[in-house]
Amino acid sequence: MDSARLIACARGDRKADLLLKGGRLINVLSGRIEPVDIAVSDGRVAGFGDYAADAVVDLDGRYVAPGFIDAHLHIESAMASVTEFARAVVPLGTTTVVADPHEIANVLGAEGIRYMLASAENQPLNVCYALPSCVPATAMETAGAVLGARDLAPFMGHERIRALAEVMNFPGVVAGDPDILEKIALARRFGKRVDGHAPGLSGKALAAYAAAGITSDHECTAAGEAAEKLALGMHIMVREGTGARNLEALFPVIREKTLDRMMWCTDDRHPHDILSEGHVDHILRKAIALGLDPVSAIRMGTLHPARYFGIRDAGALSPGRRADMVVFSDLAAPRAEAVYVGGRLMAENGRMLPEIPRPQSGGVPPSMHIVPDRLNFAVPAKGRRIRVIEVIPDQVMTGRSVMDAAVRDGMAVADPSRDLLKIAVVERYTGKGGTGLGFVRGFGLGRGALASSVAHDSHNIVVVGTDDAEMKTAVSAVVRMGGGLCATLDQAVRAALPLPIAGLMSPEPMGAIQGLLDALTAAAREMGATLRDPFMTLSFLALPVIPELKLTDKGLVDVGRFAVVPLFTD
Amino acid sequence: MDSARLIACARGDRKADLLLKGGRLINVLSGRIEPVDIAVSDGRVAGFGDYAADAVVDLDGRYVAPGFIDAHLHIESAMASVTEFARAVVPLGTTTVVADPHEIANVLGAEGIRYMLASAENQPLNVCYALPSCVPATAMETAGAVLGARDLAPFMGHERIRALAEVMNFPGVVAGDPDILEKIALARRFGKRVDGHAPGLSGKALAAYAAAGITSDHECTAAGEAAEKLALGMHIMVREGTGARNLEALFPVIREKTLDRMMWCTDDRHPHDILSEGHVDHILRKAIALGLDPVSAIRMGTLHPARYFGIRDAGALSPGRRADMVVFSDLAAPRAEAVYVGGRLMAENGRMLPEIPRPQSGGVPPSMHIVPDRLNFAVPAKGRRIRVIEVIPDQVMTGRSVMDAAVRDGMAVADPSRDLLKIAVVERYTGKGGTGLGFVRGFGLGRGALASSVAHDSHNIVVVGTDDAEMKTAVSAVVRMGGGLCATLDQAVRAALPLPIAGLMSPEPMGAIQGLLDALTAAAREMGATLRDPFMTLSFLALPVIPELKLTDKGLVDVGRFAVVPLFTD
Repeated sequence: MDSARLIACARGDRKADLLLKGGRLINVLSGRIEPVDIAVSDGRVAGFGDYAADAVVDLDGRYVAPGFIDAHLHIESAMASVTEFARAVVPLGTTTVVADPHEIANVLGAEGIRYMLASAENQPLNVCYALPSCVPATAMETAGAVLGARDLAPFMGHERIRALAEVMNFPGVVAGDPDILEKIALARRFGKRVDGHAPGLSGKALAAYAAAGITSDHECTAAGEAAEKLALGMHIMVREGTGARNLEALFPVIREKTLDRMMWCTDDRHPHDILSEGHVDHILRKAIALGLDPVSAIRMGTLHPARYFGIRDAGALSPGRRADMVVFSDLAAPRAEAVYVGGRLMAENGRMLPEIPRPQSGGVPPSMHIVPDRLNFAVPAKGRRIRVIEVIPDQVMTGRSVMDAAVRDGMAVADPSRDLLKIAVVERYTGKGGTGLGFVRGFGLGRGALASSVAHDSHNIVVVGTDDAEMKTAVSAVVRMGGGLCATLDQAVRAALPLPIAGLMSPEPMGAIQGLLDALTAAAREMGATLRDPFMTLSFLALPVIPELKLTDKGLVDVGRFAVVPLFTD
Repeated sequence: MDSARLIACARGDRKADLLLKGGRLINVLSGRIEPVDIAVSDGRVAGFGDYAADAVVDLDGRYVAPGFIDAHLHIESAMASVTEFARAVVPLGTTTVVADPHEIANVLGAEGIRYMLASAENQPLNVCYALPSCVPATAMETAGAVLGARDLAPFMGHERIRALAEVMNFPGVVAGDPDILEKIALARRFGKRVDGHAPGLSGKALAAYAAAGITSDHECTAAGEAAEKLALGMHIMVREGTGARNLEALFPVIREKTLDRMMWCTDDRHPHDILSEGHVDHILRKAIALGLDPVSAIRMGTLHPARYFGIRDAGALSPGRRADMVVFSDLAAPRAEAVYVGGRLMAENGRMLPEIPRPQSGGVPPSMHIVPDRLNFAVPAKGRRIRVIEVIPDQVMTGRSVMDAAVRDGMAVADPSRDLLKIAVVERYTGKGGTGLGFVRGFGLGRGALASSVAHDSHNIVVVGTDDAEMKTAVSAVVRMGGGLCATLDQAVRAALPLPIAGLMSPEPMGAIQGLLDALTAAAREMGATLRDPFMTLSFLALPVIPELKLTDKGLVDVGRFAVVPLFTD
């Protein structure tokens, strides 16, 4: 920025570009709501009060808050490109995010991070990133990449990189694993934050985790847990995502003495919830409804994350800071009526202005190295009893059981009459087509198959189906799309969402994505699916860090034993 | 640090080095006072609770606070070397300082900064620095150095450098002076803070100052002034120095909503006050006596400055942070009974432990380029009426008057019968001996002379005396000492404080320095001086940025007109 021009405007010697007149400023710095006019120059706040300006907007007593900040999220969870994610959340008042490109990094490694950094340019949203700390998540599956400290180092100095992202490998930290400590040391050397992810950790193990230099956590689910972490110096991100919603449980901890180390995050928030409920603005409304004063609620979504991450030109409206501003009418339930980013009006009444361009980012390399002809889901019946994954509705945890296999022609097959479906995970990175095979109960499909290239954390192709041919059709369709979700019936695709960006994200607008997701759910329902969101359930069945029984390309994983186990028990 | 060792201790697999048992932790993070045992390993806090340790100290219910932090001070004001300054303040509980070596930089430039950085090594005190932003302070005097952005750049990346120091040239900032903006941009590029110094600035000028990127101020003298600066996003350092004491005036602003951007500083604190009243601990006691709750008072002297300056391992006691700890008994008036720095006991009951070494830093180059034989204080009587500097007791401001000169043999001379003394400022850097001459009232000397190489901000030699020969004796003595203060009578030195470190600091212990200062004051009193601290008054008579009439080596400065004016008015 040309600070001399801004200074000249601030002192009154140059006309401002814009004056927001007659509004009430949510001054997160003073903690007060102040009736002032806001002068903007060169995209930044110049000063408050009586300034001449090229354009004057009369706010007529409405409120103006700093643009909202999401302290931790995965853009991939919204299934949208950075461009379309920005277009979905900016109209809701979110003007800065700190995103962890964990999913795409598991697929494409450093190439994925480079793509996300490139995608962040010229957006109406200030997109910052935290560098994925745990790629791959485990050794019990084949991921697209391995990112060591040496691979992360070239990114650490980048202005958009604000942290090492959630250190999920908390057992490794507590045990003093040198690889993860090296990544932490790297981030600290660059003066960057080290975000945590330590659900339920407490006592000496938590002390060890904090001593390692971890400075935040967004996995608290109980007030006492958050209080303990705060007392040890950690910052707490209160999460309201799609699956995990912790605000009510943590509400008692949001008190004056520790408020300044608390902030909001969405972590994983799906298109439906962004489109229907909102984003950070939804959390503000919920917190205020629970009884938090609006200024404190807004501080947690502005000043605190900006300070935590050292994003010094965001988080507040004050001279020199970026003029990211949210205009709204109802202090009890803020809903953005106008959103300015860098002093430019970007959205009104929940919609981007039509003239705001859609920045195009470069292509991503293909990540779908599967030869459909070689797909083979046959399971020779080597025994009679099989281990079965038991879906628990709306949970990422599963149960487990042992059942009699359904055997036909010497092969163990699906048996929809017992809701026993076949499940497969097809490795998509090496071209070798390694396939893990198993059985699952709980989907309720009578016919057809469902397949997805969104399969945490390694994002191989996961498929469930009532027979092998359906499954092959479904996986082949996913491969043809370069990634995505699909529902097949009678060996034809009934519904599909192409996710050509690393098999995780669509380039389409979020509304269109949601339309295809709705069609997919409807198709699955037609085929008999009973789950609220069968594709979401499917996407977690390959995640071998959440109990009890999961499937990866290497086979069935007994999470409690952290080991691959045979399908047959006898 | 070897974080794996610390982590092993934190999780309980390695014995701690030290356990402070049975104390009450002032947890500035939770805002609570918590009865916990504190385990220390490798100089850092490992954890709280039940830990095995090589050494156990029973605190018997006493309090433990994080070591105190002084957010802004000039070590030169204490006239002591870094080593002796540390030995004076560590026993008082100060374990971290952010010092602005403004004075020595005016004398020795970058060489002075290098010397101060070198002096900071191996101290029991964590000495951080802010880089002097305004060297020289003005163009109306000859200073020892000019420091532009290019000169500061090599230091900016140094770990001990936490900020660009107080930007006193606030008119320059507001006017958009490119030289000072370049220094600010430099600091921001390195992610360092930019400290302010803007007494009384408000409204649009203050907006311009904030817009330039200035993030703090320690010059507030009124509550409204501090509130305005806080609302614009600046951090406020509440100062309790020797001359300026602002706590009472600013007390109403210390409220919950903005507390987290407020901190303590001493700025200029002289040996007498450090030795008799204390340092940061004195401010804590005063604030608590005024009614501030002790935890908030301690936060302002620990967590807040650490966070502001990004000193991430200080400011609180939590796993991974340095074990800088102050033990005390009286929560209403904390007075350090034991001080640990990096887990090592350094001081007890106000005294350094005898075994703590005194680190020696390298020498400083000579800064006294004056040839005593060429000193000449004669003032030919070119007129009858002279401008006279009028000392105002205990203030750095002066008044001004016009009086009849006392003329003898065609020369204007001192006239002690009217309390009219001669004053001179002798340039000490170039060897040219440029000398400003004038007259001053208010010292009350009947005989003799007082001279000093401490003369803000350029630190040339300032001398007042009753005749030229006495003045010559005094300045010659200062030159011989390589800098210092002296009082001469009958052309002999009656008392002296050698300040061989840049003419500003003594290598002696602070108690010895104070002894010599007392002797100097006593000698000045004998000679008729009436001021409470004649040498302090003397040291500000050459400061041409404080009204109304001052003297530099270039002559009398009318501060209001910002111009050199003739001695004679007719």
